[in-house]
Amino acid sequence: MVGQVFDLPTRVNRPALLPISLRTGQPRPITFSQAVVQSLAILAPGLLGASVARAARTRGAAGRITVWARRPEMRVKLEATGWFDAVAATAAGAVRGANLVVICAPVPAIPGIAADILPALEPGSIVTDVGSVKAAMCRKIHHTYGNTANFVGAHPMAGSEKTGHLHSSDDLFAGRAVFVTPLPESSPSAVDRVVRFWTTLGGEVVTCHPDKHDEIVAHVSHLPQIIASALCSFLSTRDVSWRNYAGNGLRDTTRIAGSDPALWRGILEENRFEVMRALSGMQDELQTLQAAMANGDYLEVLNRLERGNAYRKSLRPGKGEA
Amino acid sequence: MVGQVFDLPTRVNRPALLPISLRTGQPRPITFSQAVVQSLAILAPGLLGASVARAARTRGAAGRITVWARRPEMRVKLEATGWFDAVAATAAGAVRGANLVVICAPVPAIPGIAADILPALEPGSIVTDVGSVKAAMCRKIHHTYGNTANFVGAHPMAGSEKTGHLHSSDDLFAGRAVFVTPLPESSPSAVDRVVRFWTTLGGEVVTCHPDKHDEIVAHVSHLPQIIASALCSFLSTRDVSWRNYAGNGLRDTTRIAGSDPALWRGILEENRFEVMRALSGMQDELQTLQAAMANGDYLEVLNRLERGNAYRKSLRPGKGEA
Repeated sequence: MVGQVFDLPTRVNRPALLPISLRTGQPRPITFSQAVVQSLAILAPGLLGASVARAARTRGAAGRITVWARRPEMRVKLEATGWFDAVAATAAGAVRGANLVVICAPVPAIPGIAADILPALEPGSIVTDVGSVKAAMCRKIHHTYGNTANFVGAHPMAGSEKTGHLHSSDDLFAGRAVFVTPLPESSPSAVDRVVRFWTTLGGEVVTCHPDKHDEIVAHVSHLPQIIASALCSFLSTRDVSWRNYAGNGLRDTTRIAGSDPALWRGILEENRFEVMRALSGMQDELQTLQAAMANGDYLEVLNRLERGNAYRKSLRPGKGEA
Repeated sequence: MVGQVFDLPTRVNRPALLPISLRTGQPRPITFSQAVVQSLAILAPGLLGASVARAARTRGAAGRITVWARRPEMRVKLEATGWFDAVAATAAGAVRGANLVVICAPVPAIPGIAADILPALEPGSIVTDVGSVKAAMCRKIHHTYGNTANFVGAHPMAGSEKTGHLHSSDDLFAGRAVFVTPLPESSPSAVDRVVRFWTTLGGEVVTCHPDKHDEIVAHVSHLPQIIASALCSFLSTRDVSWRNYAGNGLRDTTRIAGSDPALWRGILEENRFEVMRALSGMQDELQTLQAAMANGDYLEVLNRLERGNAYRKSLRPGKGEA
C-alpha cells in the first residue's frame, strides 16, 4: 500500500494502481480530472456518511470505499445497500490502508472514535468528520494525534430532519456550504486535500477557524433549531385541538423540530456557550417586539418586520424555492 | 333578482335560472349536488380573493362572479385574467344583485368596505370575508349591519408568503382549515350558507367564536410569523457573510419572514392582546431553555426537544410532506 494520498492522478499510466472493484474484480472507471482518494473509509454512517459514499462514487472521488458501523445489525443493513465495497467489523479494520477517513458519528462520539483508530491509521492518511460543532473536538483530536496523524474537521451544512442512511443521496452536498475548520497548526497539505475532497463531492467549501465556525452555526443552524423546537414545545402546552388548524406557515417554521432530539441535545451541549449567546440575542429581539406592541409603537414593529423580510430575501434560494 | 340565496338546487327544472356565461351567452354547467351561489361578488381580491373565484368556478360553486378592486390599474389586470364574469368600477356596483359577497381586503380595511356596500346589498344577501383577525371586526360589522344585512366572518388558513392574484390557485383551500366565526346573535341560516360555501370550495370548515379564533391564530399563525421575522431581524444584525451558510433548516424556519410586512403589521396590531399573550408564553419557553443550558441541565433540554418533536410529528402533513 502506498503511503501517499491522492497520488493516483499522477500515475494514470500504471493500471495496477487503479482501484479494483471487490465485486467484479475489474478496475473501476475514474475521472482523473478530479482529486481522487484511493481508499476511503467512512465510520458510523447515517444520512451524511452514506451520502458521502454515494457522492464519492457518482463523482469518481474515491476508489475503494470501506465502511464501519458500531452495531452489527447496522453493518448487515449497510452491506445490503451496495453503496460500499467492504463493510469492516471494526473501526481499526476499516481505516487500515485508507488514505482518507470520514468520521460521521454524532459530535460527542467523534473524539473517542478518532482516538480508537489512531494505532491503525496509515502514515500520511488524513481524518476528517461531519460534526456540527468543531472547537473543542478539533483541539482534542489534534492533541491526541500530535504529529502522528492529521485531523482536519469539516461540517457540511446539508443535514435534514430525516436521519439514517436510507435518506442519503448522491447530490446531498451539491451547492451546499461545507465548512473545513483547520487549526493554525494543521498541516497545510492535509487541509488542501480535505478541501479538495469536499469540493469534489459538490460542496462549496469555506475554511474557517473552529471557534468562528461554532459562532456562525450557533446563529444560522442551532438557534433556528432551538426556536423551532421551543415553538412546538410551547404549543404542545396549549389546547390539543389547535394543531388541526396548522397552516403551511407553522409547518415550515417548525419542520426541523422533527429532528432527532438526542442528536440535538448533544449539539446544543457541545456548543452551549455560543448557542446561549445567540439565544440571548434572539430573546432581546423578541423583548423589543413585545415592548413595541405593548407601547403601541407599530412603526417599530413594522421596521423589524421589514428588516426580517429583507434578510430572508437575501438568502440564496434552496432546492425547490423560486 | 330573487331575494333568496342558494335557491338554485331546488329549481333545477327551470333552465332560465341557470347562470349564463357572459362570454359565451350559454348556460354554464353546474353540479347541483353542491351548494351554489347564483351571483358572487369578490371585493379587493389578492391571492385569496382570486383563489375564491377560481375555486368557485372549478367546483361549480357560483354562477356569475363579479369582482371589484379599489385601484383602476388593478381592475384592468383582473379583467385580463378571465377568472371573473365582470369587473365593477365600484364596490356598490359589484355587490348589487349578489347573493354572497366575499371581502378580501387586508384586515384594517374590511369594516370600512363592509359599511360602504351596505346600502347596495340585496335583501337577504350575505357578506363574509377572509381576514386573519376576527373579534373586533365581526362585532363592528355586526353593529353596523344590525338587522339590515348578514355578516358572517371567515378565515381560510391558506395564506402564503406570496401575495397577489397571480399566485392564486383553484385548489388553494382544498383540505385547508377554514374558520367561520359567527357571533351568538348571527342568523343561523346565514351561518349555514357561509359554511356550505367554504366547504364547497374544498375547505374543512370549523365554526368558532371570533374571540376563540383570535386566540387560536395568535398561537398557530401569528406567533410563528413573529418568530420567523424576529429570527431574521436578529440575524440581519450579525456578520453579513453568515447568510451564505444558511442551510435548509434556516430557510424553512424563516420562510414566512418573506411575507408582506405592511400586511402583518396590520394583523399584529389588530390582534395585539392575544399575540402578546402568545409571545409571552414563547418567551417563557425560551427562558426555561436558556436557564437549563446555563445550569447544565441537559435532561430538561432533551425533554423540551422531545416534547417539541412529538408535537411537530402530530401535525397533519402539508402538501409535499411525507
